[in-house]
Amino acid sequence: MTTDAALAGTESAIRIELDAWADAVRARDIARIFSHYDADIVAFDAIAQLQFKGADAYRAHWERCMAMCPGPMIFELHEVQVAADEELAFGHALVRCGGTDPDGKEMSGWMRMTTCYRRRDGRWRVIHEHFSAPFDPQDDKVLWLEP
Amino acid sequence: MTTDAALAGTESAIRIELDAWADAVRARDIARIFSHYDADIVAFDAIAQLQFKGADAYRAHWERCMAMCPGPMIFELHEVQVAADEELAFGHALVRCGGTDPDGKEMSGWMRMTTCYRRRDGRWRVIHEHFSAPFDPQDDKVLWLEP
Repeated sequence: MTTDAALAGTESAIRIELDAWADAVRARDIARIFSHYDADIVAFDAIAQLQFKGADAYRAHWERCMAMCPGPMIFELHEVQVAADEELAFGHALVRCGGTDPDGKEMSGWMRMTTCYRRRDGRWRVIHEHFSAPFDPQDDKVLWLEP
Repeated sequence: MTTDAALAGTESAIRIELDAWADAVRARDIARIFSHYDADIVAFDAIAQLQFKGADAYRAHWERCMAMCPGPMIFELHEVQVAADEELAFGHALVRCGGTDPDGKEMSGWMRMTTCYRRRDGRWRVIHEHFSAPFDPQDDKVLWLEP
């Protein structure tokens, strides 16, 4: 049985992982982003495909996304909640993300994110990630909402 | 330390939970659906809002969704993957869901689902759920894709 204090420590460790990963996204550092992902990750991203199986397929997608989103990167995690056990953890957040156009104007929207971790050989790795925006079922268009 | 055999048993328990919940959805049985949810669930649903905080807000949303989706319910979980530890578990799946129009014609689409559980007092409860469909960033329209 794991003590509450140990679990609180693990939750802190997951928040540090999430912050480091978000920092890597803002830096557009694909290698550093992918240092957080398991080779067998199954990812449900907000755009383009139903799913991406494995880090190689997901990396190619991230590279296309980075190319689509020019200028200084906006990537902020809000309302982060984390739960952790000995070998599994997950977190969810609202994410303000986007880029900046050539005139310096911010182009951003709010998304939702769920991230699921497994500890392997003492290191936490993301084995599943889910990003999305909600849509309006009347016209199948994305709803760009603010919290 | 938990044995592999015990964790395999827990993963089976989570699959049974998921199947029972999906069966409740097909039966349009809101009380049975919500017997799986924690009172403090934070849900990111595919439509309408960024998030729903707490079972009461989420129940009202489910009731509106059920009203929007007439006829015999289609709700199938595919490519289910589950991970479980002593007190936390999560699963993800592709979901074919929809309804049937008055002429008996199926109206369905493929979504993605992530479900996160915590064990409280020996019972598994969903504390976070995330449903979505991917969209095309060129026109912000939902991409109705098949696996």
